[in-house]
Amino acid sequence: MDAPAPNIDGCLETALYVADLSRAARFYEAVLGLSAMFADQRLVAFDCGPRSVLLLFARGTTEETIRLPGGEIPPHEGFGRLHFALAIRGEDLPLWERRLAEAGAPVEGRMDWPRGGKSLYFRDPDGNLVELATPGVWRNY
Amino acid sequence: MDAPAPNIDGCLETALYVADLSRAARFYEAVLGLSAMFADQRLVAFDCGPRSVLLLFARGTTEETIRLPGGEIPPHEGFGRLHFALAIRGEDLPLWERRLAEAGAPVEGRMDWPRGGKSLYFRDPDGNLVELATPGVWRNY
Repeated sequence: MDAPAPNIDGCLETALYVADLSRAARFYEAVLGLSAMFADQRLVAFDCGPRSVLLLFARGTTEETIRLPGGEIPPHEGFGRLHFALAIRGEDLPLWERRLAEAGAPVEGRMDWPRGGKSLYFRDPDGNLVELATPGVWRNY
Repeated sequence: MDAPAPNIDGCLETALYVADLSRAARFYEAVLGLSAMFADQRLVAFDCGPRSVLLLFARGTTEETIRLPGGEIPPHEGFGRLHFALAIRGEDLPLWERRLAEAGAPVEGRMDWPRGGKSLYFRDPDGNLVELATPGVWRNY
């Protein structure tokens, strides 16, 4: 631990735990336009862009160790209304606002950040708080 | 909703909810080498690389609407042992395995993925399941 840590090249996977996997997957596909890279009865994995994956787990299916030919995935689980943010383009902000209203997931909060970025907040079907954020929110975005 | 969705440019923020914010922040700084971009008594935001942020929230501080000069952030909260993954380089895998053991967060699971990527799984101080994944896990990584 004396040496500096090796490099981290970004957050690869963000996970949500949902009550109805089909319902949640339909929402992220139809409203956010995400494309599933993998889907079974337990998990849908969405391609959010290079090196960026959104995982939807059917709640209750992750609480035991998963044994696969390549190894083991230890237990995990989540409850509550989690928060995560997706990056969008500034010029698309009004399109997103209209799209979310039409989809029945209206914008519930808005932020103008000191660096110039803007965020919209809305709920997915499980009540998770999704943020769409334009560049200018953090020093690395 | 008839038009295709505007583009999503990646997952910007992944959030955890921790019992002791200082303890959790120390772990991610000292063990994973992450650098905080913002820290107060409620939130620590780590730079995980370009357009990639890990948020640690002190549990209980996110359950009311946050009103700021620039707008409002609606409530959210999380419980359980959440899962997320960070991208690492293949050549660093043995360094990480040793580093985690020395830090008292030993590897609890390992995966060899069909595309050639490898994952290590360990726990943070709150029991969240952290994955370190080398390229070759998903079609976009």
